[in-house]
Amino acid sequence: MASVQARVETALEHCLPPRDQAPQRLHEAMRYAVLGGGKRVRPLLAFAAGAATGASHERIETVACAVELIHAYSLVHDDMPCMDNDVLRRGRPTVHVEFDEATALLVGDALQAAAFEVIADAPAGSDRGVQLELVRLLARAAGSRGMAGGQAIDLESVGKSLTLPELEFMHILKTGALIRASVTLGAQCGSPTPAELERLDHFAKLLGLAFQVVDDTLDAAANTATLGKTAGKDAEQGKPTYVTVLGLERARGLAEELRREAHDAIVGFDERAQHLRDLADFIVLRQF
Amino acid sequence: MASVQARVETALEHCLPPRDQAPQRLHEAMRYAVLGGGKRVRPLLAFAAGAATGASHERIETVACAVELIHAYSLVHDDMPCMDNDVLRRGRPTVHVEFDEATALLVGDALQAAAFEVIADAPAGSDRGVQLELVRLLARAAGSRGMAGGQAIDLESVGKSLTLPELEFMHILKTGALIRASVTLGAQCGSPTPAELERLDHFAKLLGLAFQVVDDTLDAAANTATLGKTAGKDAEQGKPTYVTVLGLERARGLAEELRREAHDAIVGFDERAQHLRDLADFIVLRQF
Repeated sequence: MASVQARVETALEHCLPPRDQAPQRLHEAMRYAVLGGGKRVRPLLAFAAGAATGASHERIETVACAVELIHAYSLVHDDMPCMDNDVLRRGRPTVHVEFDEATALLVGDALQAAAFEVIADAPAGSDRGVQLELVRLLARAAGSRGMAGGQAIDLESVGKSLTLPELEFMHILKTGALIRASVTLGAQCGSPTPAELERLDHFAKLLGLAFQVVDDTLDAAANTATLGKTAGKDAEQGKPTYVTVLGLERARGLAEELRREAHDAIVGFDERAQHLRDLADFIVLRQF
Repeated sequence: MASVQARVETALEHCLPPRDQAPQRLHEAMRYAVLGGGKRVRPLLAFAAGAATGASHERIETVACAVELIHAYSLVHDDMPCMDNDVLRRGRPTVHVEFDEATALLVGDALQAAAFEVIADAPAGSDRGVQLELVRLLARAAGSRGMAGGQAIDLESVGKSLTLPELEFMHILKTGALIRASVTLGAQCGSPTPAELERLDHFAKLLGLAFQVVDDTLDAAANTATLGKTAGKDAEQGKPTYVTVLGLERARGLAEELRREAHDAIVGFDERAQHLRDLADFIVLRQF
């Protein structure tokens, strides 16, 4: 995992414009938002899914950067005063605090464009049709029927009590869409059969939910220092979470159940899927 | 022009998610931001450039929608309180006024994703390699070395006096990049020679500058009712413009000069480039 993380860090470093290129302040803020922090869960998933389908590292690197750039942009916008109004992220001041709100807005906008540019700047020799399909899948996952849509539902749900299916629908879009895209894009860099792709997608869907359930339990239980971001914000803002809907113990049980189902979904894969299995464990058992 | 505008309106209508699809409020706001207003200058340029290179209407339609979605998203974000803080756009309340700030933020984010989705959802039979190149060009034009970068420079320049070259650099990114992309993407839907593409790009660069110069003269001279957006904001916010740098008369002279140069750039094209010529005239001679 550490070697993939290091590889992704270098790749992200390279696909962002250099600090000394105009407009310098924007580029500095983009680098601040993306580099030097984060668990890189989505790139790890892309690499693990690519490994399961025999993809080359060079090709996976591209999609790993793209999904992480989309994720990074969403965090920058999500932290802004008109959204979650958060001042701390990955143990550092959020972008609008370190720079300013207008810069944060543009950083997010520019990072989203950068994500699509990375995929379109496909490595030589890659199949153009596949690359275009990756653009389509990522755009769909990021947009109003994916991540951005999930955030809109999240906003509308503040102060309301949601049923478990409603909460699930929100998270399938908000966190799930990009987690699924990470796995699907990584897998498509190799040569998956349609059946394999379907099983990987099912795995990713379960894992995306598990990820959010664990996030909610950590947010409810942890303190700010461990989490690297402001803890307890969800409850404070009256946001329904898996913990408010199910209670802490049942939420933990659900995460464990999703972890087992995720393992089952890829039971037919050989040892090349081991990283995916490890990641499922890591995501559910993590303490931060 | 009216027939292209009507065609683009219908195409935009179709490529946006329906109002009754969840999340409804976000989709309603996206449609509010995009439909029923605007001169559609960028789609018109895409169609005119495509006509000059013998492109099919069906293919141009895709890129016309994509550039307009990028433009629409940039207006929504630009109007937000942390940027220009504007309440009026196309004679109607801006998105954050009609809805709310968080929704405006997500509308812009989702519209950007939608732009790339439209191109990636290429019409059957289109060359995948070309479509991928269109994604790359659009991403580049929208990002930190294009439109978003220009906006960052614009922000930094508030209260400063810029030289003419500095002002030009800002606008080449801020407005110019997407105007150029509109022409280039439209042209690439047909079969331009490299030399033709270069001349069209030069035309678009001149026109992009002319567009901004005229915008500045109109903002300085017009009143809010004619403009459909708040007039005189630039001066009020201490933003350097072509009028503050050159004065109103010399700015008008520059626009006229750029119009002539734009005509010269495409002098070798036959009558199929007539719409481009008409648009150059329209953009410089418009009163709104």
